[in-house]
Amino acid sequence: MGNNLLKGKKGIIFGALDEKSIAWITAIKCHEEGAQIVLTNAPVAMRMGEINKLAEKINAPVIACDVSNAEDVDNLITKSMEHFGGGFDFILHSIGMSLNVRKGKHYTEIDYAHNLKTFEISSISLHRVLANCMKKDAINDWGSVIALSYIAAQRVFPDYNEMADAKSLLESVARSFGYHYGVKKHVRVNTISQSPTRTTAGSGVKGFDGFINYAEKMSPLGNASAEDCANYCVVMFSDHTRMVTMQNLFHDGGFSFTGVTNAVIEQMEK
Amino acid sequence: MGNNLLKGKKGIIFGALDEKSIAWITAIKCHEEGAQIVLTNAPVAMRMGEINKLAEKINAPVIACDVSNAEDVDNLITKSMEHFGGGFDFILHSIGMSLNVRKGKHYTEIDYAHNLKTFEISSISLHRVLANCMKKDAINDWGSVIALSYIAAQRVFPDYNEMADAKSLLESVARSFGYHYGVKKHVRVNTISQSPTRTTAGSGVKGFDGFINYAEKMSPLGNASAEDCANYCVVMFSDHTRMVTMQNLFHDGGFSFTGVTNAVIEQMEK
Amino acid sequence: MGNNLLKGKKGIIFGALDEKSIAWITAIKCHEEGAQIVLTNAPVAMRMGEINKLAEKINAPVIACDVSNAEDVDNLITKSMEHFGGGFDFILHSIGMSLNVRKGKHYTEIDYAHNLKTFEISSISLHRVLANCMKKDAINDWGSVIALSYIAAQRVFPDYNEMADAKSLLESVARSFGYHYGVKKHVRVNTISQSPTRTTAGSGVKGFDGFINYAEKMSPLGNASAEDCANYCVVMFSDHTRMVTMQNLFHDGGFSFTGVTNAVIEQMEK
Amino acid sequence: MGNNLLKGKKGIIFGALDEKSIAWITAIKCHEEGAQIVLTNAPVAMRMGEINKLAEKINAPVIACDVSNAEDVDNLITKSMEHFGGGFDFILHSIGMSLNVRKGKHYTEIDYAHNLKTFEISSISLHRVLANCMKKDAINDWGSVIALSYIAAQRVFPDYNEMADAKSLLESVARSFGYHYGVKKHVRVNTISQSPTRTTAGSGVKGFDGFINYAEKMSPLGNASAEDCANYCVVMFSDHTRMVTMQNLFHDGGFSFTGVTNAVIEQMEK
Repeated sequence: MGNNLLKGKKGIIFGALDEKSIAWITAIKCHEEGAQIVLTNAPVAMRMGEINKLAEKINAPVIACDVSNAEDVDNLITKSMEHFGGGFDFILHSIGMSLNVRKGKHYTEIDYAHNLKTFEISSISLHRVLANCMKKDAINDWGSVIALSYIAAQRVFPDYNEMADAKSLLESVARSFGYHYGVKKHVRVNTISQSPTRTTAGSGVKGFDGFINYAEKMSPLGNASAEDCANYCVVMFSDHTRMVTMQNLFHDGGFSFTGVTNAVIEQMEK
Repeated sequence: MGNNLLKGKKGIIFGALDEKSIAWITAIKCHEEGAQIVLTNAPVAMRMGEINKLAEKINAPVIACDVSNAEDVDNLITKSMEHFGGGFDFILHSIGMSLNVRKGKHYTEIDYAHNLKTFEISSISLHRVLANCMKKDAINDWGSVIALSYIAAQRVFPDYNEMADAKSLLESVARSFGYHYGVKKHVRVNTISQSPTRTTAGSGVKGFDGFINYAEKMSPLGNASAEDCANYCVVMFSDHTRMVTMQNLFHDGGFSFTGVTNAVIEQMEK
Repeated sequence: MGNNLLKGKKGIIFGALDEKSIAWITAIKCHEEGAQIVLTNAPVAMRMGEINKLAEKINAPVIACDVSNAEDVDNLITKSMEHFGGGFDFILHSIGMSLNVRKGKHYTEIDYAHNLKTFEISSISLHRVLANCMKKDAINDWGSVIALSYIAAQRVFPDYNEMADAKSLLESVARSFGYHYGVKKHVRVNTISQSPTRTTAGSGVKGFDGFINYAEKMSPLGNASAEDCANYCVVMFSDHTRMVTMQNLFHDGGFSFTGVTNAVIEQMEK
Repeated sequence: MGNNLLKGKKGIIFGALDEKSIAWITAIKCHEEGAQIVLTNAPVAMRMGEINKLAEKINAPVIACDVSNAEDVDNLITKSMEHFGGGFDFILHSIGMSLNVRKGKHYTEIDYAHNLKTFEISSISLHRVLANCMKKDAINDWGSVIALSYIAAQRVFPDYNEMADAKSLLESVARSFGYHYGVKKHVRVNTISQSPTRTTAGSGVKGFDGFINYAEKMSPLGNASAEDCANYCVVMFSDHTRMVTMQNLFHDGGFSFTGVTNAVIEQMEK
């Protein structure tokens, strides 16, 4: 079904919970394009989700990893290299979790211990993974790393809460590490700023429906779906995009460069 | 009434039509802060407006100038230098006119001769004025030039039509000329990206009311008024902002960095 | 050789002068990926270049078109539709020409008639082409339009002269038209901001060598080559990037998000 | 000496170490402009520096505060309100500290406990202070909060290390909190992205000299000095800039919008 865009490539995909997950669909698309995959997720997410169904479908091992835990990350990279018989070519970081959102804390009243934990899981995790890879020379020359982000990193969406700060931090880590991994090994690191997506994780956010409808009306092409995002990830992992690095790539049907649409103005006039 | 922020400074202000104009209010504020002013506007705008009332109030000469005409621009700068007895310190460029908007042309069906004229008046005019000033060494060391812009230069507001392109071009001219005038004479050049404002000019734009209400609801501090903008221009002309140059400065109550507000989401849910 | 990424797609490619041209290499890659192509260039460029060699190689018709001439643009789109037997799927706009640079005018002393001509050819041409396509419903649903740009649209590179303003205007036209064509027909319009490239056209710019070396040292992955750019265009024309629109896409080895490199600092310390 | 720009206003200034500090000079300028000040710094910084000299000069109390400590922050705001007899109008957050830089860790090999501590002190501290102020309704209507940042938040400067991520996070916190404080109380929150400055703190960064020379050559107006920055802070605290919020304001002599200067190209050609 694919075009062999990733023939011979190998990669690790974080964050496939269930079949609505961007990571899940990306794993399938990468497999269709000829890639070999290692799947990973947090132990708790693995219990909740259905990752084993996916693993079977694409013939991929699953290695549990709490990304805020150094040993887990170390184990993941080591085991992945053993599985692949050496280095690999791409990583999808689709990880985000906000303790303060879960606890229902307003942004102006967040708990700071939770805030730090949110950053550890959602942002610093990218650094941990890349630092471990660099130490082991785990990513092949011209490899590609993608982390999923959201435009709240640039503009305020009040209900997005501390995750906005987590995404800003994530994008900065991608840029900073992208510099060093680029100079050293031509590895490129980018974030994709995706439309709000009806995944199981996304749906938990307060006011998510008003949010997603607004984004739909504010995007000349409508919101990008999880499947669209998976397609975009595939080309970002392919050799067609080797000189794109250290960027935040908007993938949102035009939302980010639209000030207002006629559809929104009409609604405002009601 | 003022704080002597512009004591001893001299400047040219383009575009004061009537008492709602940002340029009009800025002229008054600059005068209150101790500056001497030369007023100018297009001959046609002078006939329609009430610039002479302003001139009297702040004791400023009025020199007509069609900014798309080389001789007019040359005459303006020459006469201003004669009036001031030498160089001057600041310029406010508050000029914009779209022939295709006036003719009711949709953006996708604009007339190109009109499009070029729109750029000549709204954007290239800044280059003409600055080039003429540079040739005559008319702006004093550490002088400050401001042109008024709008966020349609970055994001699409469909009814703003070709003025979006004109403002992008204007901001680029400000940046480019700002480099050269900065290196040569420490003159700084910036644009201010102002909230939509109920001036006589602004009101002509189709769908302006829906537009301004949306902006009001999307700005945590509300829309910036013409008077707010005049206050901001004053500090941009003062010595307090000498190292700010080649920028587009958002002055919009937070609109530009707000993705959505609760007020807008509520309206969307209706 | 390709991956059938553009199987069944049809497109028009502007600006293939000789085998160093980005447009030339893109045409070959698109052909390899299964696309049918119509080639076009300005009559004068066609005389200077070797477009017929390319046409033969990829079995494409060549239709001359001065993009500042309404009839030429109209003829190009009509003839292309006749050739393709209906609508087409993509356009590459690789067109830029600065009369003031050719005449050796400094940015602060440009001739305004030339300046307007530069904008007509380099920027407004994109509007003319898209407006003509829209009128004839020439671009298929989910089609993709790319125009080549340069980072001088965001930051000043002094020798780039008025082309900086032309590229800012081009990017604005892409964004504005992208909104309307997106809403109407899901056609996406983007610009690619490419590294300085040693093409026959690029080489003409004053100080180009210092420029390209600096960019090479400032890019963690080095400068993107014309071939890299062609690969990137291919994926932007493919269905893998359907939700990317109204953007300026940096394709520059990391230049745009690098503040300084150790390589540059070392050179500065000499 | 001043212009009474801050007559009747009251504010807290963090981070005045010695007379080279931006915070130190800003405190003096604010005092000259008619403001009352409370000074604060970390206990360790107070021992190293000379804050009492400043306190005497501007007749300001000094309240020690470790910004990563909830009780200290609470005490600071309470005591400041007691001193002022109620709410206050502005805050300068000039705080940054990188444990990994101090320990000489390369960015790709940072210690994560230190990384979190760096964020707590340099970035989350702004949240702590603002949250405490909001709880106590400590900042008056239309108050103004400034935090000092650096362009490494947008583009990579390799030796800036984890402070780049800290500044990105700081800017995000300013934006996020700026939304909520703006909606609630018209309080505006911005960051100023200042040129590299030869302060006692700045000088500690590895490669700082090459860095500052490069920035000087890359800025059409040269680097902004600490005194320039203090002047800019004054107008950002004044009522002249009431509608500017949620922004990162470049104050850098044009560095941020300059791609390259002739001075740098010449050096590259050596």
